[in-house]
Amino acid sequence: MLTLDKIYQANHVLRSVIRKTDLIHAPNLCPDVDLYLKTENLQVTGSFKVRGAYYMMSQLTPEEKQRGVIACSAGNHAQGVALAASKNNMKALICLPDGAPISKVEATKSYGAEVCMVEGVYDDAYAKAVELQRAHNYTFVHPFDDENVIAGQGTIGLEILDQFPDVEAVIVPVGGGGLISGVAFAIKQLNPAIQVYGVQAAGAPSMFNSIQDGKITCLENVSTIADGIAVKEPGTHTFEYVSKYVDEIVTVTDDEISAAILALIEKQKLIAEGAGAAAVAAAMFRKVPIQGKKTVCLVSGGNIDVTILSRVIKRGLLMSGRSCMLNIELVDKPGQLRDVSRIIAELGGNVISIHHERANEGSDVNGCFLRITMETRDYPHIEQIRHALTSAGFHLVN
Amino acid sequence: MLTLDKIYQANHVLRSVIRKTDLIHAPNLCPDVDLYLKTENLQVTGSFKVRGAYYMMSQLTPEEKQRGVIACSAGNHAQGVALAASKNNMKALICLPDGAPISKVEATKSYGAEVCMVEGVYDDAYAKAVELQRAHNYTFVHPFDDENVIAGQGTIGLEILDQFPDVEAVIVPVGGGGLISGVAFAIKQLNPAIQVYGVQAAGAPSMFNSIQDGKITCLENVSTIADGIAVKEPGTHTFEYVSKYVDEIVTVTDDEISAAILALIEKQKLIAEGAGAAAVAAAMFRKVPIQGKKTVCLVSGGNIDVTILSRVIKRGLLMSGRSCMLNIELVDKPGQLRDVSRIIAELGGNVISIHHERANEGSDVNGCFLRITMETRDYPHIEQIRHALTSAGFHLVN
Repeated sequence: MLTLDKIYQANHVLRSVIRKTDLIHAPNLCPDVDLYLKTENLQVTGSFKVRGAYYMMSQLTPEEKQRGVIACSAGNHAQGVALAASKNNMKALICLPDGAPISKVEATKSYGAEVCMVEGVYDDAYAKAVELQRAHNYTFVHPFDDENVIAGQGTIGLEILDQFPDVEAVIVPVGGGGLISGVAFAIKQLNPAIQVYGVQAAGAPSMFNSIQDGKITCLENVSTIADGIAVKEPGTHTFEYVSKYVDEIVTVTDDEISAAILALIEKQKLIAEGAGAAAVAAAMFRKVPIQGKKTVCLVSGGNIDVTILSRVIKRGLLMSGRSCMLNIELVDKPGQLRDVSRIIAELGGNVISIHHERANEGSDVNGCFLRITMETRDYPHIEQIRHALTSAGFHLVN
Repeated sequence: MLTLDKIYQANHVLRSVIRKTDLIHAPNLCPDVDLYLKTENLQVTGSFKVRGAYYMMSQLTPEEKQRGVIACSAGNHAQGVALAASKNNMKALICLPDGAPISKVEATKSYGAEVCMVEGVYDDAYAKAVELQRAHNYTFVHPFDDENVIAGQGTIGLEILDQFPDVEAVIVPVGGGGLISGVAFAIKQLNPAIQVYGVQAAGAPSMFNSIQDGKITCLENVSTIADGIAVKEPGTHTFEYVSKYVDEIVTVTDDEISAAILALIEKQKLIAEGAGAAAVAAAMFRKVPIQGKKTVCLVSGGNIDVTILSRVIKRGLLMSGRSCMLNIELVDKPGQLRDVSRIIAELGGNVISIHHERANEGSDVNGCFLRITMETRDYPHIEQIRHALTSAGFHLVN
């Protein structure tokens, strides 16, 4: 059973292994909220997962330690288990689906774990892990539904109270519910007046639905940029703790998460993964009643693939008017490209790509299209350029 | 005159204003070096500049405080002075060239400074600032060549020694030299055995050249991605301190800086601007003799424009084989695009753009070119795809 004692013990055990991550003031993310970030993206392995994994392993018997552990994950849990096992001088075997990103596989290996690539998707890797666990009598490290894992994650709650005793609200991302179970339990035991809110991705609302329905429900499929919290079904332990200790669960969309990732980069110089930015998204988009309150957003991790990060930034630039694409219908005669280029240059637009295409079905036989992508300052700047082009007689298609 | 006492006093004065930024272990950035990062990118205003500006202003007489301060900057110094003035309850006027990025202008205003946009470049804004300073008797806040400013930056040296008493080497980015003067002075006074290295951008090696020449030399122009250290001429004070207390100055290229920015994102979840990543670049590319040493890289700031960040990431992906562009010469007959797409899909390449173009001068009248940009895993993956296409009879142009 989870007790405050156990979380304090985990806190002691973890001291030599994990970083007590900084609590950073973020006054510009959300007007009217006194916002702080608990930066678990700066934790070793880039996420909080190592806390629960390490504490859970530290509690195994010598025989269990001797036999080693097994886990199934393509993400933060894999790296947490790998590092925790190596710090506990244990063998760890991690089953991954063979489509897992190379970067995550390499990171898991780099922390000293043995990796077993399984053909198929997550469920296939999970089945293989169960099979291997039985065959070799390994201990299975569950990513969230285990009381020692939950106790390890709960140490973040103790740290928040220690770093910010006046805190009034804490917002926590929710996947399977291990993190919020531990954090909410620790906080509510010590100060029940502090509000604890959970955030799920709108494309993977398993805990949200389960709490609404009053019973554990399972999603058929999940789809979100926040792969770290894309979980189909809450655990039995975590469902119970969330029901009892969490004030409210809300959801955020992928666009809101993307905006939060970009805001964390620009205003706080921090990289968060989708799940890591979910709590900040909930604050920025007013999903929880925190106006005027001293609030901590838990930034749970920063392991985002750079190609995805690149897309998030591109989308964020488009959405905030700092990049724009224009389709211009031209009459096919010399000098048109020169005129368009001159107008854009004079107004300070910075062209980054041009695509020029002749005689589409939809256009005049002498017509052609020019598609220009450029860097702009903001929406008024885009309007200024559009207006100048229109005034000069050019026809903008969108 | 700079004294250790003054730096200790600055440390005391700054306590209520700045963050004692975390020193974060970065074991995976540079094999064989025990590397730590002093994260001044996580400082308020996103850079260390507020330290020197605030301490300098705190030392003004009541009359001087009453009249207010003026500065000229389009970057971190502007934001540092703006915040420092508002915390000191003083008026600040910041002259900026009118081409300055909107984001920096807005950030400076958001900290409460009055902004004066000056037509032209930095030198024009500087001339205007001098003119206004004389007319109104404001105090000019120099970005680096001022002993109180240097004392303020020197507090970072004290913090490093406090957070990591065993440190053996410290690497510091160098523009005008204010930061490294303060840091090197503090460190060498307390422990002369610690090596202090300076890093400049290869496109702006003003201090590097001056130290080589044994006298202050002035560059005609500077060009680097690291705008925060693009300074044409060192100060007289800073040149003297660097000559006396810094062990060596080295330079890094923009490509090396870009690689360091990407490595900080992927491995440490931190955003650094070009100047902020320079010290890490020097460590990663072995510009300084730190093998086996306990080393601190000072990450001086994180205020990088997102459009530039986006370009750095794109370049980093290309350079590390995680994105690739292929030009394929096709015979113009049906089914060719289908065959190419099939081969790429089967090997796991993820196409993000296609450009198909007919009848170039250089090609057969029936020929055409296909330019494909795709996400790939690494260089071997790219080679695998290239080989499969070539084996199927396609002609790759590059």
